[in-house]
Amino acid sequence: MNFTLTEKTVVSVRFNEADPLGIVWHGHYIRYFEDGREAFGAKYGLTYLDFFRNDLVVPIVSVDCQFKKPLRYGDSVLVETTYLDCPAAKILFDYRLWNAATGALVATGSTTQVFLDKEQLALQLNVPAFFEAWKAQHRLPKTTQP
Amino acid sequence: MNFTLTEKTVVSVRFNEADPLGIVWHGHYIRYFEDGREAFGAKYGLTYLDFFRNDLVVPIVSVDCQFKKPLRYGDSVLVETTYLDCPAAKILFDYRLWNAATGALVATGSTTQVFLDKEQLALQLNVPAFFEAWKAQHRLPKTTQP
Amino acid sequence: MNFTLTEKTVVSVRFNEADPLGIVWHGHYIRYFEDGREAFGAKYGLTYLDFFRNDLVVPIVSVDCQFKKPLRYGDSVLVETTYLDCPAAKILFDYRLWNAATGALVATGSTTQVFLDKEQLALQLNVPAFFEAWKAQHRLPKTTQP
Amino acid sequence: MNFTLTEKTVVSVRFNEADPLGIVWHGHYIRYFEDGREAFGAKYGLTYLDFFRNDLVVPIVSVDCQFKKPLRYGDSVLVETTYLDCPAAKILFDYRLWNAATGALVATGSTTQVFLDKEQLALQLNVPAFFEAWKAQHRLPKTTQP
Repeated sequence: MNFTLTEKTVVSVRFNEADPLGIVWHGHYIRYFEDGREAFGAKYGLTYLDFFRNDLVVPIVSVDCQFKKPLRYGDSVLVETTYLDCPAAKILFDYRLWNAATGALVATGSTTQVFLDKEQLALQLNVPAFFEAWKAQHRLPKTTQP
Repeated sequence: MNFTLTEKTVVSVRFNEADPLGIVWHGHYIRYFEDGREAFGAKYGLTYLDFFRNDLVVPIVSVDCQFKKPLRYGDSVLVETTYLDCPAAKILFDYRLWNAATGALVATGSTTQVFLDKEQLALQLNVPAFFEAWKAQHRLPKTTQP
Repeated sequence: MNFTLTEKTVVSVRFNEADPLGIVWHGHYIRYFEDGREAFGAKYGLTYLDFFRNDLVVPIVSVDCQFKKPLRYGDSVLVETTYLDCPAAKILFDYRLWNAATGALVATGSTTQVFLDKEQLALQLNVPAFFEAWKAQHRLPKTTQP
Repeated sequence: MNFTLTEKTVVSVRFNEADPLGIVWHGHYIRYFEDGREAFGAKYGLTYLDFFRNDLVVPIVSVDCQFKKPLRYGDSVLVETTYLDCPAAKILFDYRLWNAATGALVATGSTTQVFLDKEQLALQLNVPAFFEAWKAQHRLPKTTQP
């Protein structure tokens, strides 16, 4: 069985994202990850707004990025965002960024998100019903609650 | 009589604010203006939070900037923010940005803000009581209502 | 005769571009203008890289923006970028930003750019040959030199 | 022996760094790390410009951040940046971000940088002489070359 879901999107490097060395400043990759999550969310019904309508916010609690090759102004980046199913009340994404023209891997990374209820911003220790339903809809395994 | 108030603050140019030409990308100056307004607000009791506590938000409705000299990573910018009193229900600021080391004028600009009530986000055609009191406190002339 | 050229592009509002009021922070509109110029440049052969290959850089010397309606996360912005022909050695663009879903005008603005040679960064008082050729190619009137 | 060096600096959260949830967007923490490195560099003679004058650039090849508590507009962040000595031709920094008012730990993180020569952008497998001298000056152990 396949317990991952993937979506790809292409992002153009903006002039203002390149630094005095002519290469994209490393902090902007975090934005590309978010662009990737958004494209994933748009395809699979999992944008910030979808969570919000279900009284949830899903803040990032951890992010990491490994930089392999520089990106320059004028480059296009293929962002490949993969949902990794996990038994805990967390949302894990992996990212692979490719130079769309050369096919070179330019960066990898991952993020972890948790579930808070929108009003109290209290951490949800169990997977919320909305997300469990979303997983079922995409044939991902039911979470074993702690 | 002096119908203006001024505050100065120094901002350091961040590495990630310079573009591939090695000079600060023009859009970042809008940030420096906001840094200037914040420093002004901190001195004169007029930050976004002061407005918010008085049930007001004061969005920018107009901004302009003229760029005179480039700024580079490592430069310090002296931001001089001047409140210009005006008879309408608006807040006007002028900005002068100087290279702190050379004294050269690097940019000028201005912003216009209006008053909205925090809940309805409805435009306030008259100057709100909070702001009229703030003006009186700083010996600025009472606004002639329309 | 038509002395203007126009291109349209659609930009999605990113989550991280909205501020605590839930609306796009005003400084990000400067980025949307740049996205508009880039789309224009991609269509008409006038990106930063096209200038650069012709030993020119074209910094912004003036920008202004008038904000009409708020934009929110999830909105799409139609950026309409119009080249305005001008007799001086300058590049003028006008911008109109529309809410792509509602058709409401959300902002207007303009930028002015000048020509510098890439090596010395010296201001070019006459329109460079590259740009004069570009204008001829698009049936824009020849510049009357000063 | 103490093989680390630390510097602290305070960063004010800008209005435009908070997102629609009212909390600082996670990507901006990467900027706070850079502010911390800059403060460290200013104290210990190790800014990007110091490297550049020694024909080196030191790009980030890896970054990670763990988010513990939200930051809001108006908060001040104490950024504690620690240089961790390492035997390889790398520069390691650890970061601890504290809410300056409450003393709460808001985030931790780390970065890894490598040495490239400025002209060829070729990876330096050995620690460059400039950096070895910098280490000696700060009584850090000499690197054992591979």
